[in-house]
Order: sequence, then structure tokens, then C-alpha cells
Amino acid sequence: MTARLPEAVTALREQLVGLHTELVRWGLVAWTAGNVSARVPGADLLVIKPSGVSYDDLSAEAIVVCDLNGDLVDGELTPSSDTAAHAYVYRHMDDVGGVVHTHSTYASAWAARGEPVPCVLTAMADEFGGEIPVGPFALIGDDSIGKGIVSTLAGHRSPAVLMRNHGVFTVGPDPKAAVKAAVMCEDVARTTHLARSLGEPVPIDQSDIDRLHQRYQNVYGQ
Amino acid sequence: MTARLPEAVTALREQLVGLHTELVRWGLVAWTAGNVSARVPGADLLVIKPSGVSYDDLSAEAIVVCDLNGDLVDGELTPSSDTAAHAYVYRHMDDVGGVVHTHSTYASAWAARGEPVPCVLTAMADEFGGEIPVGPFALIGDDSIGKGIVSTLAGHRSPAVLMRNHGVFTVGPDPKAAVKAAVMCEDVARTTHLARSLGEPVPIDQSDIDRLHQRYQNVYGQ
Amino acid sequence: MTARLPEAVTALREQLVGLHTELVRWGLVAWTAGNVSARVPGADLLVIKPSGVSYDDLSAEAIVVCDLNGDLVDGELTPSSDTAAHAYVYRHMDDVGGVVHTHSTYASAWAARGEPVPCVLTAMADEFGGEIPVGPFALIGDDSIGKGIVSTLAGHRSPAVLMRNHGVFTVGPDPKAAVKAAVMCEDVARTTHLARSLGEPVPIDQSDIDRLHQRYQNVYGQ
Amino acid sequence: MTARLPEAVTALREQLVGLHTELVRWGLVAWTAGNVSARVPGADLLVIKPSGVSYDDLSAEAIVVCDLNGDLVDGELTPSSDTAAHAYVYRHMDDVGGVVHTHSTYASAWAARGEPVPCVLTAMADEFGGEIPVGPFALIGDDSIGKGIVSTLAGHRSPAVLMRNHGVFTVGPDPKAAVKAAVMCEDVARTTHLARSLGEPVPIDQSDIDRLHQRYQNVYGQ
Repeated sequence: MTARLPEAVTALREQLVGLHTELVRWGLVAWTAGNVSARVPGADLLVIKPSGVSYDDLSAEAIVVCDLNGDLVDGELTPSSDTAAHAYVYRHMDDVGGVVHTHSTYASAWAARGEPVPCVLTAMADEFGGEIPVGPFALIGDDSIGKGIVSTLAGHRSPAVLMRNHGVFTVGPDPKAAVKAAVMCEDVARTTHLARSLGEPVPIDQSDIDRLHQRYQNVYGQ
Repeated sequence: MTARLPEAVTALREQLVGLHTELVRWGLVAWTAGNVSARVPGADLLVIKPSGVSYDDLSAEAIVVCDLNGDLVDGELTPSSDTAAHAYVYRHMDDVGGVVHTHSTYASAWAARGEPVPCVLTAMADEFGGEIPVGPFALIGDDSIGKGIVSTLAGHRSPAVLMRNHGVFTVGPDPKAAVKAAVMCEDVARTTHLARSLGEPVPIDQSDIDRLHQRYQNVYGQ
Repeated sequence: MTARLPEAVTALREQLVGLHTELVRWGLVAWTAGNVSARVPGADLLVIKPSGVSYDDLSAEAIVVCDLNGDLVDGELTPSSDTAAHAYVYRHMDDVGGVVHTHSTYASAWAARGEPVPCVLTAMADEFGGEIPVGPFALIGDDSIGKGIVSTLAGHRSPAVLMRNHGVFTVGPDPKAAVKAAVMCEDVARTTHLARSLGEPVPIDQSDIDRLHQRYQNVYGQ
Repeated sequence: MTARLPEAVTALREQLVGLHTELVRWGLVAWTAGNVSARVPGADLLVIKPSGVSYDDLSAEAIVVCDLNGDLVDGELTPSSDTAAHAYVYRHMDDVGGVVHTHSTYASAWAARGEPVPCVLTAMADEFGGEIPVGPFALIGDDSIGKGIVSTLAGHRSPAVLMRNHGVFTVGPDPKAAVKAAVMCEDVARTTHLARSLGEPVPIDQSDIDRLHQRYQNVYGQ
């Protein structure tokens, strides 16, 4: 079966091993609880972490390939139990090339209260363009989580959504951008948590948030 | 004496060295305060960390073998001062193949208040099937701690118990599962602490907790 | 063009790679959000991190050289988007040889509330000689941030300023001293945050702060 | 001059390099702010870290030897600016063979409020035998800090004292024991801080604290 896979799959499998290492390095995951996927360009396929495999044991060969219904197309192992949610996002958001899911600590604490992270940091205006919104409570096992992600992100500039009582999903044009959004989401969730715990952060005017976001999306980086 | 030990002991000693490293890696222990044990399958024996030995200095040879009364059967060193508690668990819980004890920070903070960790995260429903309960205050030196662990766990699906003013004991079918429970216990204790520190987490319906737990115990992983 | 650069540039580029590693090591930065610059002695030049490059990929060659208006003089990459702020500081503070910018967590939490860090620790009296002040809210893109840094530091002994809703800028006679100030700023911001979260820290008399600062600036170290 | 030093000095210098690494590993120090000393057995000498040297650059040769007035006896570098406090402790506490000083975060937060850490954890009863007390505010430069340490410890079983608005000093029969006390002090200061931040910890009866301390001091370890 492997012979018929697009060539891009090999490089994406390698890349995904490295990106899962970033989840560990930035402290976003405990044990095996977090996963990264990538859309295979030009094909109705995605690559994703297998279920319950520890990050130390993750190799390119262990990464599985699924179709956009989340069914296994290539690989020896069972796909992540979050595959259906990732697949739903790829089916309904054409611009998304990468999806990340974590239970990162501070973001999940906001999610447990069902409270969006308010935009009170310039770094948050840059990356998220406003608050990080909260999606509905949804059980695993069907399209509920995917639908909650897509419908919530539709109303916001944020590439991150806090699923209530659950954790974080982030999206990006490619999987590295989605990992960056996951790292930044935890970072601003933590700083904002701490700011709030001793008083009220100063709000930032919406027009300033707009200007910061506009600039960052167009000028920052190489 | 070593000649009469079951063959499984050698591999378990090696495994325990690696699992103690996981306690350090996931930040569950300070100095030497935490230990892992394993039941030796088909024998009334357990293997456990020696007392007060630093994790750096832990070798397979240093791991001691005790009977299920906690008395030393093989090894040069004094067994962990928590051996009696581990042994009591093995004597009274036939399905338990591994036990872990830590003073991990957030879990011990809940334990110091004598307050169970409420189940407000889907990851907690998955792994613990409800709250993480609190066991009684008990002094070291006899069966008090073991009794407190066993009687508290009897009323809950949780593989973890917070012993009041003390720390965490977790159990599992094997020592790796018990270590996973210890890692996840600290993770959810931390997220829930932070959620609570800025307001009230949204409760999860008991029926949803049941469904999540049921699914995770049967579908997750390989 | 490289041929005409002062000799000092080569060593400063090397040093800056190492100092960015310190930002990571002491936990001051997430992803690529933080930068160090150095004034080139005897020239109207500075060296600084390129924009959006990850710390792992940072090499001496990647470090860019700019004039004190922030315009690129040598290097293949786009300078940090904070270059204008660094350059403004060098133009207006002759004694400054190094500048650091981070969004370190606890310091940024104080900045989000627009609240200075009060001087309630002897280590803070030593390094900062009083409170760590808050500068104005300022948008990136012109001299606003630089002006805010310089005008705020003018009224304080502190080598660190919290820019409101943004993060930290620190200065020093050389870039290592500015990195030290950034490390110590986060350290005292964290301890003071925690002290305040359970009550009121005991104030330190201004005369004691003065004595501690005086001694530390003249006696400490080699 | 080195020729007349007791033989034990060489091994102690090596040991101190390793023990300073432990301060970093357990997260007790930022930049260069923390030091370990050891009494030289059978001589009126101590060995201690030089002032302001980073932990990476610390070698056995860099460790300095002082007399018990804190004056330099051997070594190229200026002794730690805390040497007078260490020396005072050795002069007045005959059983002390090692002293550690840190500004570890949670312990220093209690110190900033001038509030002792209450004994609400069995691990704290084990190691500290009760609360961790607070010593007076004292300026560096004479015997004030040393006097504050010695007079405060005299009334407690704790090997650790929180110097008000400053940080932690710990003592032990040897430098490793003092480092262990510093690690455990931060650990229990953190857990107790977190316990208190969501309510009131359950007190432990003094008779239970006594029993735990008695047992731990005599039975634990090898």
C-alpha cells in the first residue's frame, strides 16, 4: 500500500516526529497526551501520531496515514483517538495544513472554567488577534469535537480554541505553525492567569489589537 | 539466596530503574522522596527502591526484593521505608501489579487540605473515572497507611489516592501503569488547582464521566 | 561589505548566540519571542537577533548588524522587529552596551496590570535598587517603545522596565549584564508575585535598599 | 600556601562543585545567587564558592578556603559575599559541617512576608520537625546575618531558617545534608504555599510531628 502514497508523506512523517518533541520541550504534554497532524498536500490524506505511544518511542515509521474520514490508510498502529477531530477540521477548513491538540496546563485551566483568555498582552494581539475563545463541551467518538472546533474558530481570528473541560486545539497553514500556536497559547494563558490572580489586567483597545495583529501577520519573521 | 529468586526479578529490577527516572523526568519527586514497586508475578514477592538512595545512584542491583510482609529477601540495602504500605496493597488487591508513592507538589497540596480533586477535566474522567479521593491521616511504621490506601480505593474507580497531609499512592496492573497514574494525577491536580484559583470550574455530568472513562479504558492505546 | 565591519563584530556575534541560549535556559522565552543586542564599541552599530529565527537555528552568521537607526548594515536576514527599540536606547543612553527584550512570564504579568514590582527582597535591592518601574503602552513600528524605555529608566536605578501590556526591556554596560538583569527581573517578579498572593510582603526601608544597592554595585563579584 | 592546607580540602573542593550543580538541578538558584560551604574537619577553616562566578564556570580550583572569620586563606578569587554569615555559623554551631544559602522562590516568598512555613506535611515533620522559622531582617556586611541564623535555629529543630525579605540558610552535619535541607525546604514551602492558596491545610498534631521526626532522623536511609 505504501507505494501508492504521495511522496510528501515521508517528509511529513519525519517532521511530525520533531514537532512532537517540541510539545515535550515546551512543557505542553504529560505522558502521551497530545498530538500533531499534518494534511498531505494535494491528497485527501493526513498524517498523525498513533494512539498512546510515548514521545520517546515515536519514529517516522510509527506515524500513521489516514484519509480525511480518519480511517487508517497506512501504518502498523492505531491512529490517535483524536483523529476524527483532526480529520473534521481538514474537511471543513481548506486553509489548514496542520492541527495540534494538547491539554497544556494553563490553557486547560481556562477551559475547565469555560472562560476565554482575554487579550491583554501585545504578544497575544500579535498571534491571536483577540481573545482565545472557548468551544463547547463535546464527547469523543463522533464529529462533536471537530464541529465544536470549526464553528468556534469561524467567529475569531485566533488559531487556538479551548474546548470546555478538555484542552486546546490549534490550527495553522502547516503543522509547525500549529505547534507555534499551541506554544504561544499556553504562554499567554499562563501570563494572563498570573496577571489576573493579583488584580485586573489593563485592557488593550480593540483598534490597537487590530493594528498589532495586522502588522505581526505581515511583517514579522523572514 | 539470589539463585532461588524467580527469573522475572531480573527484568523487574531493570524496569524499576527506568521507572524511577520517569518520576524525576515528570517532576514528581524532590531529592529521594518517591518510590516505585512491582509485584513479582507468580510469587509472594515484590521489588522496590532501597531507602534514601538518590535516583542517580539507582542500579538494578540496588533494587531490593521483599516478601509481601515487607521483609527483605534479596539485596544489600535497606528497603524503602514505605515498603510496608506497598506490601499491604499487594496482599489486599490481587489485581495490582505496581505501586507508586510520591509527594508530587499539586497533589500533595490537595492532600494537605484533605480535599479530593474534583473531576472537571475529560482527561481526568478518562484516567480516574471521577474524583481523586483522600485517604486518612496515617503514621508510618505499621499497616495504617496500607489500610488507608486500600479502604479508600475500594470506593472509587481512581487508581490514585491522596493520603491526608502526606502525598500520593497510585496502583496499576503493572508498575508502568502505576507510574502513568502518578504522572496524570499530578497533571490533573495542577490544572484543577489553577482552574479553581480564578473561579469555579464547570462540572461534568456523571453520565459523561462514565462514558469517557468506559471508552478510555477500552479503546485508547494500542 | 563585511570587510569594513569593526573587528569586535565577530566576537559579539558569537557572544550573542550564547546569550540567547541563556534566555532559553532560564525560561525567559517561548518559541522565538525574545532578543539580545549589543552595541559595537567605537562604532555607531549594533548587533541583534534576526526576526522569527528559532534559538536552535541561531548561528553567529545569522546575527545581523544594524546602524543606530536600526537599518541593516550586514547580514542575510531581516533584523528583529524590536530593532528600532534597541537602537533608540543606544542612541539615547551612552552607558548602555547591551539590551535584552523578553516576555518572561511573571514580569509580563505585572506589566499586564501596569503595576511596578515592589522592592521587598534584598536581592532586588541589590540588582535593581528599588522597584522595577512600568513604562507606557506603546505600539511597535516607530520610536514609541524606545522613548518609553528611556524616559522610564531615567527616573529609576533599575536596569529593567516593564512595558505595559507587553514585556520586559533590560539594559546593561554589556549584553551579559543585560541578560543577567533579565534573569533577575523574572526571578524577583516571580518571588514577589508569590509573596503577594498570600498576603502583604514586609516593606524594606528605603535607607536599607540604598545601602544594599550601593554595596552590591561596588563589592559583589570578582 | 596550598602545601599547608589539610588534605581534606582537596576532596571538599571537588564535592562543593557537585553540590552547587544540585542547586541548579533542583531549581533553587537564578544566575549566581546561591552558595554552599563546608567546614574543613579538624581545622578552623571552611571552603566556599567564590563571589559572582557562574555555576558553569565553577571548578575545584575556583573554590576558595577561608578561616572561620571569613578571611581568605587559599584561592585566587574573592570569596562569596555571604562568607561572613557562613563563618559565623561554623564558629557558633559545633555540629554544623555544611551551610547552604539560596533565594529559592517559594521559601523566599514566605520570607518576604516574614511568615514561617507551617508544618502541615508529613515530609516536613520528617525533615524539619516543625515549622520552618523566620529570622530577622539583617544587612550584609557584618555578623548580623550570622547572628540571626544562629539565634533563630537555636529555638527550632529545623535545619532551615528563612531570613526576612532575603532567602534561606540551611545547615547540616555535612554539606550534602545542608543541600538536601535546602531542596526539601523549597519543596515543602511550595506545596504549603499552594495548599494555602485554596484554603486552610489540616493541622498535624504536635505529638504526630514529634513521632514522625523522631522516626525519620533515626530509621530513614541506609
